Amino acid sequence: MGKNFFGRLVRMAVGWFYLSFYALSLLGLMCIILTVYWMQLWHGGFAWDGTSLMFNYHPVFMVAGSVVVYSAASLVYRLPQSWAGPKLPWKIGHAVLHLLAFILTVLGLVVVFQFHNHENTVSLYSLHSWLGIVTVFLFACQWFLGFVVFLLPWVSVWLRSLLKPIHVFFGAIILFLSIASVISGINEKLFFSLNNNTQPYSSLPSEAVFANSTGMLVVVFGVLVLYILLVSSWKRPEPGILSEGQPLLCDGE
Amino acid sequence: MGKNFFGRLVRMAVGWFYLSFYALSLLGLMCIILTVYWMQLWHGGFAWDGTSLMFNYHPVFMVAGSVVVYSAASLVYRLPQSWAGPKLPWKIGHAVLHLLAFILTVLGLVVVFQFHNHENTVSLYSLHSWLGIVTVFLFACQWFLGFVVFLLPWVSVWLRSLLKPIHVFFGAIILFLSIASVISGINEKLFFSLNNNTQPYSSLPSEAVFANSTGMLVVVFGVLVLYILLVSSWKRPEPGILSEGQPLLCDGE
Repeated sequence: MGKNFFGRLVRMAVGWFYLSFYALSLLGLMCIILTVYWMQLWHGGFAWDGTSLMFNYHPVFMVAGSVVVYSAASLVYRLPQSWAGPKLPWKIGHAVLHLLAFILTVLGLVVVFQFHNHENTVSLYSLHSWLGIVTVFLFACQWFLGFVVFLLPWVSVWLRSLLKPIHVFFGAIILFLSIASVISGINEKLFFSLNNNTQPYSSLPSEAVFANSTGMLVVVFGVLVLYILLVSSWKRPEPGILSEGQPLLCDGE
Repeated sequence: MGKNFFGRLVRMAVGWFYLSFYALSLLGLMCIILTVYWMQLWHGGFAWDGTSLMFNYHPVFMVAGSVVVYSAASLVYRLPQSWAGPKLPWKIGHAVLHLLAFILTVLGLVVVFQFHNHENTVSLYSLHSWLGIVTVFLFACQWFLGFVVFLLPWVSVWLRSLLKPIHVFFGAIILFLSIASVISGINEKLFFSLNNNTQPYSSLPSEAVFANSTGMLVVVFGVLVLYILLVSSWKRPEPGILSEGQPLLCDGE
C-alpha cells in the first residue's frame, strides 16, 4: 500500500517533469518562430546582403541564441538522466550547447554591424546596444571561466564547489540581461518601423500587437527557466546526498 | 591565538559588510540623483501640471520606487541586526518599505497617465508600457500575498517555509522585470527626445551618454542587489541553525 502510494507519487513527479519539459520546449520554439514570422511578414524576410533584410536576422539570432538555446544549455543538469552516472558527458553537453548559443549570439552581432556598415550608420549608441554588448562580453567571460574551472581537470573540487553558486548566479544574470536587451530591442525596432503617420506605434497596428506579445512571451519563457534553474528541486544530487535533491534557493529570509 | 584569529576574521567580515552596505546605498542614491539630474538639466525640471514637466517625475519615481526603495526593502533581512531577537519588527519594516516602494511606483504610473490625458495621447501601447504595467500588477500581488502569508498570524509555519523560496524568487523576478522596464523606458525616452536632425541619438550627444550611463548604473545596482539577495551568506539563520547562515543559492548545477 505504502509502496503503491510511493510509486504513484514518483510516476506523478516524472509525468509533471515531462509535461513541464515539453511545455517549456514548445514555448521556447514559439519565441523563435514568432520572431522569424515578425521579420518575414512585416519586414520582407531574410538575405545575407548587408541590407535591412540582413538586419532581420538580428532579432532571430538573439532570441534563439542568447535566450532559447542559452536556456536549454543552462537546464542540462535539470534532466533526470544527468543525475546518475558520470558527470563529464553532461558537462561537455552543457559547454557545447552554450558554445552554440554563443555562436548564434555572435552571428546576431555580425548581422547588425554588417547592416550598419552597409548603410553607413553608427553602431553602439543606444542603451539597448550598450546593454547588449556588455551582456555578450559577460557571456564570453562566463563561458571561458566555466571551461577553465569546471571542465579542465586541474581545478580542485574544493575551489569548484566554492565557485559553483557564483557560476550559477552569473548564468542566471546573463539570461536576465539578455532578456532586458531583447525587450529594449523589440521596443526600439517598433519605434523605428512604426514611425509614419498612417500607422504609428501608438495606434497599436497588428505588427505592434504581434511583436509586443512576442516580447512578453520571451519574458514568460525566461521567468519559467529561471524558476527551474534557481528554485525547483530537479537537480543532480550533490555527492553524499543521494536520496533527494536540494533546491538552489534552499531557504528564504 | 586562535581566538585572536577568529576575532580578526569576524571584524573583517563586519567591516566588509558595512563597506558593501554603504557602497550599495551610495550607488542606489546615485541612480536616483542622476535620473533627477537628467530630467532637470535636459527636460526642464518638474511640475504637477499634466505637461511634459509632470512626465519628468515618471523616470524618477520608477527608478526610486521600483528599483532603489524596492531593493532596500528586499534586503532588510540581510542586516545583521535582524538576525537575532524577535522577527516581527523586521517583517513589519520589510512590508512598510515595500509599501513605500509600491506607492512611489503607483505615483510613477499616475504622472504618466495624467500627462497622456493632458496631451490627448494614447497610453499602454509600447512594449515598455506592457512590461511595466504587468510588473506593477505582479508587485501588487506579491505584496498582498506576502502580507497574508507571512505577516497575518493564521498561516502555519510549515506553509510559510514552503512558500518562502517562491516569495524570494518572485521578489527577485519583480526587481528583474522592473530593471528591464527601466532600461526599455530610458531607451524609448531617448528616441523620443533625440529625434531632431541636429542632435540625433546616434550622434551620442551628452544627454545620450548621460542617460545611457544612468541606465547601466541601474543594471549594476540591480545585479549587486540580486547577488546579496540570492547568493551571499548575509542572512538570518534558520531556527536550529544558529552558528552560520546558509546562502540562498546553496549549491550549484
